[in-house]
Amino acid sequence: MTTVTNADSSDSGRFDGVGVIRTKRDGGELTSGQIEDLMRAYLSGEFAEEQMSALLMAIFWRGMTAAELAPWTGAMIASGDRIDLSGLSRPSVDKHSTGGVGDKISLILVPLVAVFGAAVPQMSGRGLGHTGGTLDKLESIHGWDADLDQAALVRQLDQIGGVIVAASPELDPADRRLYALRDITATVESIPLIASSIMSKKVAEGTESLLLDVKVGVGAFMTDLDQARLLAQTMIGIGQAHGVRTAAMLTDMDTPLGRAVGNAIEVQEAIDVLSGGGPDDVRDLSVAEAEAMLQLAGLDGDPAKALADGRALDKFREMIQAQGGDLSQPLALGQTLGTVTAWRDGFVSRMDALKVGMASWRLGAGRSRPGETVSAAAGVICHAKPGERVATGQPIVELRGGDPARLQAAKAELDGAIDIGDDPPAARPLVIERIGL
Amino acid sequence: MTTVTNADSSDSGRFDGVGVIRTKRDGGELTSGQIEDLMRAYLSGEFAEEQMSALLMAIFWRGMTAAELAPWTGAMIASGDRIDLSGLSRPSVDKHSTGGVGDKISLILVPLVAVFGAAVPQMSGRGLGHTGGTLDKLESIHGWDADLDQAALVRQLDQIGGVIVAASPELDPADRRLYALRDITATVESIPLIASSIMSKKVAEGTESLLLDVKVGVGAFMTDLDQARLLAQTMIGIGQAHGVRTAAMLTDMDTPLGRAVGNAIEVQEAIDVLSGGGPDDVRDLSVAEAEAMLQLAGLDGDPAKALADGRALDKFREMIQAQGGDLSQPLALGQTLGTVTAWRDGFVSRMDALKVGMASWRLGAGRSRPGETVSAAAGVICHAKPGERVATGQPIVELRGGDPARLQAAKAELDGAIDIGDDPPAARPLVIERIGL
Repeated sequence: MTTVTNADSSDSGRFDGVGVIRTKRDGGELTSGQIEDLMRAYLSGEFAEEQMSALLMAIFWRGMTAAELAPWTGAMIASGDRIDLSGLSRPSVDKHSTGGVGDKISLILVPLVAVFGAAVPQMSGRGLGHTGGTLDKLESIHGWDADLDQAALVRQLDQIGGVIVAASPELDPADRRLYALRDITATVESIPLIASSIMSKKVAEGTESLLLDVKVGVGAFMTDLDQARLLAQTMIGIGQAHGVRTAAMLTDMDTPLGRAVGNAIEVQEAIDVLSGGGPDDVRDLSVAEAEAMLQLAGLDGDPAKALADGRALDKFREMIQAQGGDLSQPLALGQTLGTVTAWRDGFVSRMDALKVGMASWRLGAGRSRPGETVSAAAGVICHAKPGERVATGQPIVELRGGDPARLQAAKAELDGAIDIGDDPPAARPLVIERIGL
Repeated sequence: MTTVTNADSSDSGRFDGVGVIRTKRDGGELTSGQIEDLMRAYLSGEFAEEQMSALLMAIFWRGMTAAELAPWTGAMIASGDRIDLSGLSRPSVDKHSTGGVGDKISLILVPLVAVFGAAVPQMSGRGLGHTGGTLDKLESIHGWDADLDQAALVRQLDQIGGVIVAASPELDPADRRLYALRDITATVESIPLIASSIMSKKVAEGTESLLLDVKVGVGAFMTDLDQARLLAQTMIGIGQAHGVRTAAMLTDMDTPLGRAVGNAIEVQEAIDVLSGGGPDDVRDLSVAEAEAMLQLAGLDGDPAKALADGRALDKFREMIQAQGGDLSQPLALGQTLGTVTAWRDGFVSRMDALKVGMASWRLGAGRSRPGETVSAAAGVICHAKPGERVATGQPIVELRGGDPARLQAAKAELDGAIDIGDDPPAARPLVIERIGL
C-alpha cells in the first residue's frame, strides 16, 4: 500500500512519531537517535499514550534488537535518578529473580553475600498475582520499614553491606508509566519489554554487577526454557551495554521452592535456613546463588559455612534492625484453615507451583491490583513435596491464614495440583543452566 | 509465558478489555459478543483510547475475519444515524472510489446514473494528501453548498435523483474517532480497518446497492493488485452482511485520470465529458461505472447516449443548482505558473500518477491536515499522456495556480515522473477486473 505521507511533519524537523511506529510495525530497526527522540517526546507528552501503546504492540510483534534495547533502556534510566555507589568501600552486587512461588531466596542471599564484604543494594517490588514480593514478606516483621532515603541506603550499604528497600519514586519513572500502559494493553509478555523494565531499574540502582535468577516452569512467568534463556541473554546484553557485569541462572519453578508459600511463614523459613536448617532446596539454591554473586563481585568465601556458623543470621538481624524491624516480636503465622490430605499411599510425584501460588493468593497472601494490602498470616505449607512418601490421610498441603471465608476458593485452586504415584519422580536439577558464570 | 491473570476482572463480569486485546494479539478470533461489548466500552470511554490503539495495531498484524468484520462494522454503523431511504420511489445505488489522481468520475457518474431513474445518495469526503476530494472539487463552483440536512437530502434524491453532500456528523461517529486514532498510530494501512471505515459510512448513508471503484497503481492507496482485490472482496463481504448489494471494479491508477488534476480544472473536465467531449479515459470509465451501477440498481439505459445527448449535463446542472451552485460564474482556473516540456522527440511512455498528484498538492490543490483550505485554482494539466507523441520543447505538463511561490516545490515532485521513449507503451486496460458484476 502507498503510505499517505504527511509531508509537512517530516519536513519541519519535529519528531515524527508516526514514522517511528511505522518503522517498527514494518519490522525495521530504529536508530539510537530515533529511540532517544521518542522517549524524550513520550516523557514530555508530545508522543501520546495512544501512540506509545501502538508502538508497544508493534514491539510485542516485531521485537527489538540489542542495538535498539541499549538506548531504549538508557532513556528509561535517564528518566530518573541513577544512584552512585562508586564511593562505597565494598564491591556492589545485586540479584534479581523473575518471580516464583515460595521464592524467599533474597531474604537469605542478601545477608549471606554481605557477610563476605559485598554491598548488596537490593531495591525490590511488591508482589502482584500468584508470585509473592520480597517487601511483602519482610513487612510481616514487626516495625520493619521498606522506605529508606538515598543517604540512609548508602550508609547502610557501607556499614552493614546489605539492604532491601522499596525503589524510590525518583528511580525510573519511565518504567512506571510504560508498565501501567503495558498492563492495560496486553503488552506485558514481551521479552524486550520485560528485559528493559527489569534492567533499567537494576542499572539505575547503581549496582556494579548483577545475578539474574530466571525462573522456568509452570509457576514462573516463563514456562518455556528457550524463552527463559532468551530473556536471560537479552537482560545480560542490556546490563553489559550499561557497564553492569551481568550473569544469569535458569532455575526450576515447576514446584514451589521450600515448604512455605506466603509472607510470615516464608520469613520463618528463611530464618530457618539462615540458622543452618530449613529445606534442602532453599539452602542449596541460596548457596549456589551466593557463590555466583561472590564470583561476580570478585570476592572469596564459603556461603554454606556462613549459614552453618550463624554469620549469615547475624547479618540478617543487623539488616532488619537497621530498618526498624523487631525480630523479638512473634511472626503472624496464621491458623490452620484446612488441609489437603493424601488420598492413597505412594510418592508425591508432582506439585504444581502455579496452583499452589494461586491458593496462597486466594488466602490473601498476594494482591490483585497494585496498592492492595496483603495478609502476613496467609499462606500454604507443603508438608510433603515431590519425591516424598505419603500414607493415605496424611496432610500434603496445609492452608493457613486469618480468614476462613477464603478457604473454599483457595482449595479450589488446588484441584489437580498434586499427583501421587507408585514411584518417586525423576530428580530434577534446581539450577537448569548458568549463563556467563 | 504465563499470563499474569488479574482473576478479579474476569470474575466480576465487567468487560475484559485486556482479554480482548490479548486474544487478537495471539491470533484468535473475537466473538460477535466481544466485538459488540468492546465497541460499546470504547464509545462509553471504558475501553480507553490507548487500549483501542493497541488493539488496532494487533488487528493490523493479525487481520480480521469476515465473521469479526460484520459485527465490528455493524457497531460502527450503530454508533450514529442510519439514513432510511426506503420511502424513495427510486432504487438507490452509490459508488465509492478509494481515491486516485484526477479522479473526477463521481461528478459525472452521479448525474449520469440519476438520468435513468436511480437515486444516488453520495456522501463524500474532503481530500487528504495527494488524492483530491470530490467536495473540494465541487466547492470551486460559486455558491455550491456541500451541507444538506437529511430532509433536504431525501427531497433532492426523490426529485432529482442525485446528490453529493458532506457526510453529517451524526453519521458513523465511531469511524471519526477510530480514524483519528489510526492516523496517529500508523494503523491506517490495514485492509480490514480500511474496509470497515468505508463500508460503515456507505451502509449508514442508506444506499441499497453500491459499486466500489478500487484503484490500483502507483497513484492509488493500493499499489498491489492482490491487495486491491482482497480489499474489494472484504468490502463486498461487509456490504452483503449488512444487506447492501455490493460489487467492485479494480481500475488502473498508474497514470492520472484524464488531463486535469486539481479542483476547478477537474470540474471543467467533468463538464466537458458531460457535454459529450472530454478525454477518452474519463468518458470510458464513467460509462463503464454507470453501466455497472444501473445493473446493480436493476435499471436499463445507455449512459454513453446520455452523455452525447445532453441529458447527463442537464441533470448535473439540476443537482448543482439545487445546492446553490451558480454555473454561470466562471471557474477559477488559475494561471500558468510553469511547464515541463519534452526534452526529446518520442512518445510519452510513462506518467507517474503519484508524482503528478503530489505536484498538484504542492501547488495548493490538496491539504496536509484535515481542516486546511485548498486552492480552487491550483492544479496540473497533462497536455500529453502516455501513448501520445511529443516533439522536443512541447509542453507535457502545465502547472497552474495562484501562488508562484509554490512552483519550485511542485516542479521538484515531477522529477522522474515522466518517461519519453521511441515507441508508445503497450496499451493498459482501464478496468482491470470486475468482481460481482
